[in-house]
Amino acid sequence: MKIIKGSVAAPKGFFASGIHCGIKKKGLDLALIFSGVPAVAAGVWTTNSVKAAPVLLTEANLKDSCAQAIIANSGNANCMNGKAGVEWAKQTAASVSGALCIDTDDVLVASTGIIGKPLPAAKIIGAVPQLAKSLSRNGGIMAAKAIMTTDLVVKEVAASLSIAGKTVRIGAIAKGSGMIYPNMATMLCFITTDAYIESAALKASLKAATEKSFNMVTVDGDMSTNDTVLLLANGMAMNPLIRKGSPDYMKFCSALDFLMISLAKSVARDGEGASKFIEVNVTGAKSTDEARKVAMEIANSNLVKTAVAGEDPNVGRIASSAGASGVKFDASKLNISLNGVRVVCSGSARSELRAAAKKQMKKKEVLIGVDLGSGKASATAWTCDLTERYIKINARYN
Amino acid sequence: MKIIKGSVAAPKGFFASGIHCGIKKKGLDLALIFSGVPAVAAGVWTTNSVKAAPVLLTEANLKDSCAQAIIANSGNANCMNGKAGVEWAKQTAASVSGALCIDTDDVLVASTGIIGKPLPAAKIIGAVPQLAKSLSRNGGIMAAKAIMTTDLVVKEVAASLSIAGKTVRIGAIAKGSGMIYPNMATMLCFITTDAYIESAALKASLKAATEKSFNMVTVDGDMSTNDTVLLLANGMAMNPLIRKGSPDYMKFCSALDFLMISLAKSVARDGEGASKFIEVNVTGAKSTDEARKVAMEIANSNLVKTAVAGEDPNVGRIASSAGASGVKFDASKLNISLNGVRVVCSGSARSELRAAAKKQMKKKEVLIGVDLGSGKASATAWTCDLTERYIKINARYN
Repeated sequence: MKIIKGSVAAPKGFFASGIHCGIKKKGLDLALIFSGVPAVAAGVWTTNSVKAAPVLLTEANLKDSCAQAIIANSGNANCMNGKAGVEWAKQTAASVSGALCIDTDDVLVASTGIIGKPLPAAKIIGAVPQLAKSLSRNGGIMAAKAIMTTDLVVKEVAASLSIAGKTVRIGAIAKGSGMIYPNMATMLCFITTDAYIESAALKASLKAATEKSFNMVTVDGDMSTNDTVLLLANGMAMNPLIRKGSPDYMKFCSALDFLMISLAKSVARDGEGASKFIEVNVTGAKSTDEARKVAMEIANSNLVKTAVAGEDPNVGRIASSAGASGVKFDASKLNISLNGVRVVCSGSARSELRAAAKKQMKKKEVLIGVDLGSGKASATAWTCDLTERYIKINARYN
Repeated sequence: MKIIKGSVAAPKGFFASGIHCGIKKKGLDLALIFSGVPAVAAGVWTTNSVKAAPVLLTEANLKDSCAQAIIANSGNANCMNGKAGVEWAKQTAASVSGALCIDTDDVLVASTGIIGKPLPAAKIIGAVPQLAKSLSRNGGIMAAKAIMTTDLVVKEVAASLSIAGKTVRIGAIAKGSGMIYPNMATMLCFITTDAYIESAALKASLKAATEKSFNMVTVDGDMSTNDTVLLLANGMAMNPLIRKGSPDYMKFCSALDFLMISLAKSVARDGEGASKFIEVNVTGAKSTDEARKVAMEIANSNLVKTAVAGEDPNVGRIASSAGASGVKFDASKLNISLNGVRVVCSGSARSELRAAAKKQMKKKEVLIGVDLGSGKASATAWTCDLTERYIKINARYN
């Protein structure tokens, strides 16, 4: 596998574009991704009981595991808009269907932005012809920019790998848990590939990669009404069909894992108000599920995150979070390290290492290592520190 | 039931004291509560896998459901100190046992403060004779002060009620999720009563009241290694025995609920950096458990809490948190109100009420009402807003 330039338009047969349609006062706010041929498609989305209208429509349109386009807007979440919201999402899909001459139910729709504000559907529909005209093989970056909200960094990545002598490409863009003022932290990620892969394999690979990537990243522990990850595979690489469980499948999975983990990490790194990037690596757990629980509890702890902001090697908060996860372990077997400095050994804090640990906390990246001493499973979570800037961003929007 | 003066020394036969023994640089840091006669005792404590040494000792000493004294220090959590920590807790109990001529295992021990720092046990043990000498019927306030960390307000309350013509008193003190620099948010609550009550009834009443009070309050969602609630009943009111399930038991429970909820609310009100008090009232749930889950998810949401800090009537964040709780409900039946202004009606945001809602958000107390429209159960949670001061307090301690 090697990293290549571009993102969602890097795989063969994919095109992308991004324009300003007027939902936001300025900046790109409407993105389109298009495959020249119908693609096998898979998606995962928020488990929130309150789902935005575009999520519900995309879920319905993905029932046949086939799609050809993704349209996404930033600036308005089209959530809590009642029946009108569902209509607006449908009209958006219909306009893309018309402009690209594809089936309406092959259009997937995503939105991110303010909740509970009417979607200016007319602006979107009016802009779709121009958006379709702008589609290009270099448009990935425009689409990536058009889904950004308070993200400071554009998030795109692509890689190529060889499957039975054929070059297969995977490209992806994401937006992070930045909040558009005044609203929600939504995570969107769109992935394209020219791999020829069976539907069941595509779904399984996406589910597995999401577990290890976006489900292990947290900025503030809040799950949005709009979170969506979509993966389209159009088969244009002409490789032999990738079947679930085969060696080629494993190869595809590991490339997908790599891309999605890389985007997930960049979402954490670009968290609102973040001054430091935190990786929590849990080992010695009884199961992967338990390792993930502990890692996410630590990554979600306001106390751990403010300690990192304050460059305080506060092992008590880390140990306490691990213990608060609901996972049972023997506290006398707990080991904790901060950037490699073993500050807790067999459950006891080593205050003599405080100075060395304090020095590590001054770095821009802090790796918290936690060994539970009760098994062989491990997991990694990513987050950022919790700073006064986060509060400023989220408390004051006018 | 009526509110009376004092706290843990208000019930007959109870004495309390608080002194400075030198764990903290200044201020009271050692508290003692004593019953002249052995008392029936019950306790609940942190479910954290990492438990402080005093929690483990108190758990052991409560096996016989009998106790006569509680000693508590602030300034040091005596946690992650290995076997030495357990020894220090035992030595503390032994010194109280010696000074008061009571059984060692009738002494309960609690600590709050820095994790992973050796407990200065000699200072505690050296101060116990003076602490015992200072015991008085007016000492509740001193004990309440001696367990405070970054709490700004002393938390004590007492009430009397009549059981079969006899006056029964209940008194309580608590400390909140203030963090002693540089460490943990610990919640401690000690309750005394002169009621004559059977052990099973005492335990059941404490468990039920804790569920409705301290388990429904959150400042930052972090569970400490030291959280402890203890209840001693010495029977000196000479009332007929209160049996579980009897009308007198219900009367006792409702008084205990009232006292513990009042302390839990004051803990939320006094949360670190808090500028506003938030009550989340969830109705229309399928079960109490589901109502509690939704209420706590909202109360724990950084986004909701920063919105309240910013006086922003952000219903999207509230709806999204409700939906993220894991409780399934029909989003089109969701109603949300802010201090009585019905901002979400049948799942749709009513933007025309935004100005009215905004006005309500300027108040010091914000009541978030959420009706799930799926049943008849309800629950209430309490919290405070999340401000830049919280980050300052927790990121900077030197």
